Amino acid sequence: MIIHELTPADCAEVLSRGSVARLACCRMNQPYVVPVSFVYDPRQVCLFSFSAIGKKVEWMRTNPSVCVEVEDFEDRFNWATVVVFGRYDEIGDAPKHQELRQRALHLFSERSRWWLPGAAKLGASEHQNVVVYRIHIDSMTGRRTTRPETT
Amino acid sequence: MIIHELTPADCAEVLSRGSVARLACCRMNQPYVVPVSFVYDPRQVCLFSFSAIGKKVEWMRTNPSVCVEVEDFEDRFNWATVVVFGRYDEIGDAPKHQELRQRALHLFSERSRWWLPGAAKLGASEHQNVVVYRIHIDSMTGRRTTRPETT
Repeated sequence: MIIHELTPADCAEVLSRGSVARLACCRMNQPYVVPVSFVYDPRQVCLFSFSAIGKKVEWMRTNPSVCVEVEDFEDRFNWATVVVFGRYDEIGDAPKHQELRQRALHLFSERSRWWLPGAAKLGASEHQNVVVYRIHIDSMTGRRTTRPETT
Repeated sequence: MIIHELTPADCAEVLSRGSVARLACCRMNQPYVVPVSFVYDPRQVCLFSFSAIGKKVEWMRTNPSVCVEVEDFEDRFNWATVVVFGRYDEIGDAPKHQELRQRALHLFSERSRWWLPGAAKLGASEHQNVVVYRIHIDSMTGRRTTRPETT
């Protein structure tokens, strides 16, 4: 098994196909990592996601520096992983955020219909304890395995 | 889809079955998360793993507070996730670490034969740039989905 570094374009491809990431944040030098659903926006070079208000959101409001890991896992010999360093940015209900919020909802709904009930609620702001946010991508690196033999 | 909190015993079961985790560490309030192979030791209430010396090990040597996330993912409606807060503890080559090192190697080899070449190298200390470590588990929480209907 040989491990290759991914180019930025390869990293973007892994992010485009992914729907579940592991989001790490930290507070007072204590890290915290949880799985999150996401969608990648190549136009804005960011990841969109949403979450109930809880530990993760509270910590990211305090310290917006995050790290996100996305995998493309076929089996233990065939996988790719991308690690993103980025910044949390909450997308509020205010009029100035409407365009961005619509962009996020559009991408969520485009990705898969199972987003729709959640996205609809977000659009209508029925759930005041749910926040939409994006992760600005500052840098990303990735690795992919390839088998030495191709037969 | 209903989400339940897991008991400590349920969390331990998820860890026992898992082999890949996402390990988050941080330095100067910048988190970092990467996938790692691991094995859970219920006797010592820790996770064992090994790694080439690089960013992850260097950061954990500086700040041993870590967070580890393990998933048991069947499909998007059936999954469990466990989040561990713990402390990094490097297991060196010194005689005082031999028993612990052997315990780790035993668990690695028991888990799956694909560990063996790596484990053998670790046992012989052929690779000076590979470290064996454990994560002491300070606390853990978990969640599992269940379908509302069971038909």
